[in-house]
Amino acid sequence: MMFEFEVLKECEKTGARAGVLHTPHGDIKTPVYMPVGTQAAVKALTTQQVEECGAQILLANTYHLYLRPGDELVKEAGGLHQFMHWDKPILTDSGGFQVFSLGELRRLTEKGAHFKSHLDGSAHTLTPEKVMQIEQNLGADIIMAFDECTPYPATYEYTKNSMERTHRWAERCQKAKTSRNQALFGIVQGGMFADLRRESALAINSMDFPGNAIGGLSVGEPKAKMYELLEVVTPLLERNKPRYLMGVGTPDCLLEGIERGVDMFDCVLQTRIARNGTALTSQGKKVVRNAEYARDFSPLDPECDCYACRNFTRAYIRHLLKAGEILGGMLLSLHNIHFTVKLMEGAREAILGGYFPEYKKEKFQKLGY
Amino acid sequence: MMFEFEVLKECEKTGARAGVLHTPHGDIKTPVYMPVGTQAAVKALTTQQVEECGAQILLANTYHLYLRPGDELVKEAGGLHQFMHWDKPILTDSGGFQVFSLGELRRLTEKGAHFKSHLDGSAHTLTPEKVMQIEQNLGADIIMAFDECTPYPATYEYTKNSMERTHRWAERCQKAKTSRNQALFGIVQGGMFADLRRESALAINSMDFPGNAIGGLSVGEPKAKMYELLEVVTPLLERNKPRYLMGVGTPDCLLEGIERGVDMFDCVLQTRIARNGTALTSQGKKVVRNAEYARDFSPLDPECDCYACRNFTRAYIRHLLKAGEILGGMLLSLHNIHFTVKLMEGAREAILGGYFPEYKKEKFQKLGY
Ligand SMILES: [Zn+2]
Ligand SMILES: [Zn+2]
Repeated sequence: MMFEFEVLKECEKTGARAGVLHTPHGDIKTPVYMPVGTQAAVKALTTQQVEECGAQILLANTYHLYLRPGDELVKEAGGLHQFMHWDKPILTDSGGFQVFSLGELRRLTEKGAHFKSHLDGSAHTLTPEKVMQIEQNLGADIIMAFDECTPYPATYEYTKNSMERTHRWAERCQKAKTSRNQALFGIVQGGMFADLRRESALAINSMDFPGNAIGGLSVGEPKAKMYELLEVVTPLLERNKPRYLMGVGTPDCLLEGIERGVDMFDCVLQTRIARNGTALTSQGKKVVRNAEYARDFSPLDPECDCYACRNFTRAYIRHLLKAGEILGGMLLSLHNIHFTVKLMEGAREAILGGYFPEYKKEKFQKLGY
Repeated sequence: MMFEFEVLKECEKTGARAGVLHTPHGDIKTPVYMPVGTQAAVKALTTQQVEECGAQILLANTYHLYLRPGDELVKEAGGLHQFMHWDKPILTDSGGFQVFSLGELRRLTEKGAHFKSHLDGSAHTLTPEKVMQIEQNLGADIIMAFDECTPYPATYEYTKNSMERTHRWAERCQKAKTSRNQALFGIVQGGMFADLRRESALAINSMDFPGNAIGGLSVGEPKAKMYELLEVVTPLLERNKPRYLMGVGTPDCLLEGIERGVDMFDCVLQTRIARNGTALTSQGKKVVRNAEYARDFSPLDPECDCYACRNFTRAYIRHLLKAGEILGGMLLSLHNIHFTVKLMEGAREAILGGYFPEYKKEKFQKLGY
């Protein structure tokens, strides 16, 4: 099986598990954090730098690439891997999240989503069938079904109708997909309602996708609510398939997600806060822009061995940020991704070694959660 | 001699020469192009990337670093090499060019230049003695004397007075400098007047600096005028010392400068036009932003073997530029520096091989000059 997922070890005290997902562009060791390359580029980093951070798989955004440069052009270029020069696995989202973030600019029908481009106001319709065609043109290893990311807050009735449509769209995606070298993942919705989440998990799981994602979380609800809903959903998703929690990736959420049986995560936080001058470190977040670091000649994170930490000081990186030098954001992005990848590698080792609960506890203490 | 300069070969038909300049941070093979790291960073590149481009020496700006983060802080960090993590030679300019670009914000006296910071309006005075102290704190291998970059245009009288003051300041710099591991270069001025250029070249040359620079050119005059004045100046500068033409670095000016006996050049063009979407290529400039490259899946320059050209296409880089992705400017900066370094390496080989005139002719034809 091209996309076989092997669970290598499960934690005896939590839902955490370590596995391997086989793809046409190589194996992914899970749990895994996927850096985001929205427009076929991880912001401010070359793919060589991203690879040196230890990243195993990148995420790219269907909505953005469909609008610019266009999925046809990417196909002509030989697909996303060749276009952006990344030989490891790639996952494309379905555009659902971006389209539903457009607010007034979009309208939903059973057929699909009708919206105006945020770039030039041009009118577009994305249907499950159209999204499959786009994602096939882009050529990622893992492609996501077209769903509605239910807004937060939403009524029970809205959420239920939205969820049911997402299920119908998932079936349409399954029928429309023709490529054989791509794995289509379904997406569980159901908003903030445990019974709907249960219903959605059962429905999506029964469709027998090679992987199952959990969407519509981390949209503004309290973290406790997200963890509670995760506990409802993950046990209902087949054990031998990867589980992907979409758009979640702060250090605490990663470890809490792993504990609840999630295998894959993506998040833009790492590169976004980098450009604002913030580092994720083994001692918690550090706003390197701040004056307190002006004469601090230690590395961003003394426990990190990334290119930035091996060669540059907080004082230098702060200088770059204050001086408006792009290199500041580059070095912080590189470090933040490296840091997160290492956090996940540590979690995997802990699961394999049988000490995940202790690992999580130690990290939470040091990270200050 | 820590800063010995060896002329290895001189062209028989032109003034071109190939040499080696020994410095405490390694040898520099000349002729050489020096990328500019104004604020202790080459814009949008890590020092590792700059090194992979083949750069042998970087330039940093005294004026900018004095104001931010401050030369005292750089000294505390262990000097510029350590601060910016660059183990090869560094040259700092004297701030003269930047101060004199401030226009209304500055006033000149015999003592020095009085000006208001472009950052916060605070008042500062730079004297030759102060500049030597700052450059010693920064700790570059080669430091420049404090001069006035004569404005263009300027009257004969203004130019003569300015030049004479630059000579007096050069002597004050020589007296004020106490460091033994730094080479202080004098700067020839004299504006657009051949007799003043001659007078200045003789005066600066007689002060026996370990290297001589030519300032105040490429300030708006026609290129033919610059070449004419170079022909006046370089023959008067001692053969066994490096000659540095400040702020000049387009491909044509580099080859014309080499032909007239110049050994060192610096220029911000390579990184500046990169951020605007322009590539220097073996076939001339290409504005990669333009629509004609939207589906061009060839590298920026088919004759280039830099990281950008080995791995990415014009279509991809254009996409990055259009999408506002920093990576576009990063890849173009990297390529433009690599291209220029290779052009200089080619010129050096041509001088050593006895075919510089043919090399220059061929390059001019291909580059479209
Ligand atoms: Zn690091
Ligand atoms: Zn190149």
